[in-house]
Amino acid sequence: MPDDFVFDRDTLTTPAGPGRWRARVDPRWNIAGAPNGGYLVSIALDAISRTVPHPDPLAVSAHFPMRTDVAEADVAVELVRTGRAHSTATARLVQGNGTRVYVLATFGDLDAVKGPTMVREPAPSFPSPEECVPARGPVAPDFIKQFDLRLTPDTATWATSAPSGVAEMCGWTRFADGRESDTRSLAIFADSFPPTIFNVGPAGWVPTLELTVHVRGRPAPGWLQCRFQTRYLIEGYLEEDGEIWDSGGRLVALSRQLALVRT
Amino acid sequence: MPDDFVFDRDTLTTPAGPGRWRARVDPRWNIAGAPNGGYLVSIALDAISRTVPHPDPLAVSAHFPMRTDVAEADVAVELVRTGRAHSTATARLVQGNGTRVYVLATFGDLDAVKGPTMVREPAPSFPSPEECVPARGPVAPDFIKQFDLRLTPDTATWATSAPSGVAEMCGWTRFADGRESDTRSLAIFADSFPPTIFNVGPAGWVPTLELTVHVRGRPAPGWLQCRFQTRYLIEGYLEEDGEIWDSGGRLVALSRQLALVRT
Repeated sequence: MPDDFVFDRDTLTTPAGPGRWRARVDPRWNIAGAPNGGYLVSIALDAISRTVPHPDPLAVSAHFPMRTDVAEADVAVELVRTGRAHSTATARLVQGNGTRVYVLATFGDLDAVKGPTMVREPAPSFPSPEECVPARGPVAPDFIKQFDLRLTPDTATWATSAPSGVAEMCGWTRFADGRESDTRSLAIFADSFPPTIFNVGPAGWVPTLELTVHVRGRPAPGWLQCRFQTRYLIEGYLEEDGEIWDSGGRLVALSRQLALVRT
Repeated sequence: MPDDFVFDRDTLTTPAGPGRWRARVDPRWNIAGAPNGGYLVSIALDAISRTVPHPDPLAVSAHFPMRTDVAEADVAVELVRTGRAHSTATARLVQGNGTRVYVLATFGDLDAVKGPTMVREPAPSFPSPEECVPARGPVAPDFIKQFDLRLTPDTATWATSAPSGVAEMCGWTRFADGRESDTRSLAIFADSFPPTIFNVGPAGWVPTLELTVHVRGRPAPGWLQCRFQTRYLIEGYLEEDGEIWDSGGRLVALSRQLALVRT
């Protein structure tokens, strides 16, 4: 049963007419009162996956024009094209009269792909999950509690002592309830670490304007190894570049988001 | 007159009804018979910019479900939301019954942004444009002739002798006819270098599935300095990560595309 796990239950969309799905935005995935962006994208991907014939979201682009409420939502799906190797569709998460999240995604089938492989960089070497710092504690947002997230000691200093000075967050993660990751949940993992900017200085709220996830492989069971880095904070806008490797050290996703720092 | 320059003339959209614009896809921007993706995105951005109140495309996501023909095209624009700081809209480039390019963009105003700045890496040091290798010659695609593109000697070896072995293309570029770059033309520059994979081995055709451009600053007049890198080619799929600096060494755009190698 897919709804044995919290992620599947809370991203489930149910039919509500042609091209229309119904979803429930659960507060469990909130950070400071607002639903996490990767969680909302996962709801949109659930609706798209019920519409396109290909199983894997290879390229997912999401824009966040409005804050989403913890409430019911409509998801309007439009199939743009179905081809042999890829399908493209859009999903709009709508509450009231407003589109809260707009997702444009191209799906494919990672089992069917075949071509040259050349990897320039191996997965970085991190301290083991046991040597890392669990992101828990009484003040952790509800969202964080859905994961078993361990930050490397170097990038956990913003929480344990003081910001490291380097806009980076690294570590290991998996769902807290034992659900294994798959290509449809990589979007939430790509938005699941504390903002890189917490290692530079105080930041109140870091809303995402745009999030892109490229799914490059099917994750093996177990831990996901993640690195998020910011090189350019310019007039309050920053990118967060993410890399996700599976427990076998294979790259399974690249992500990038454009976000804003509100102090 | 904006249409004194080829780029403006060939990306011009004209009104054709509510939310509908008309465009002409010119063969001047072809590579091997197919229009360049960044060029098609620029047409879509022209139509969106006539619809939204903000001047700068801060985050542009484009998916390419079908090859575009060199012919007239309709551009259907939908305004998703206009807020104080940002507007979000979609544009579909349509020929016949098919959506050829789907663009989702969030616009803002780079003159109005204000916040902290922290740049971790300066612009890399390249040989000067005069020391670089012009990408010209009788076999250059029509597209390449629209630019004054100079590759660094290290990354030009695929053309001058043999692939360097490193999936990277670096150099300087500007429009050949003297048009200065601006935030609306950075999308075409983000897709204007030879594929990084040419420095690894023979590749016939490298179609783009998805292209994201984050515009981070208004470029100063003069040369744009660009670096495109691929770290992961996996089963024929690769990312191309681009960085664009202006003549003053300021980062003005980050780009990433997901492409396919067809040999």
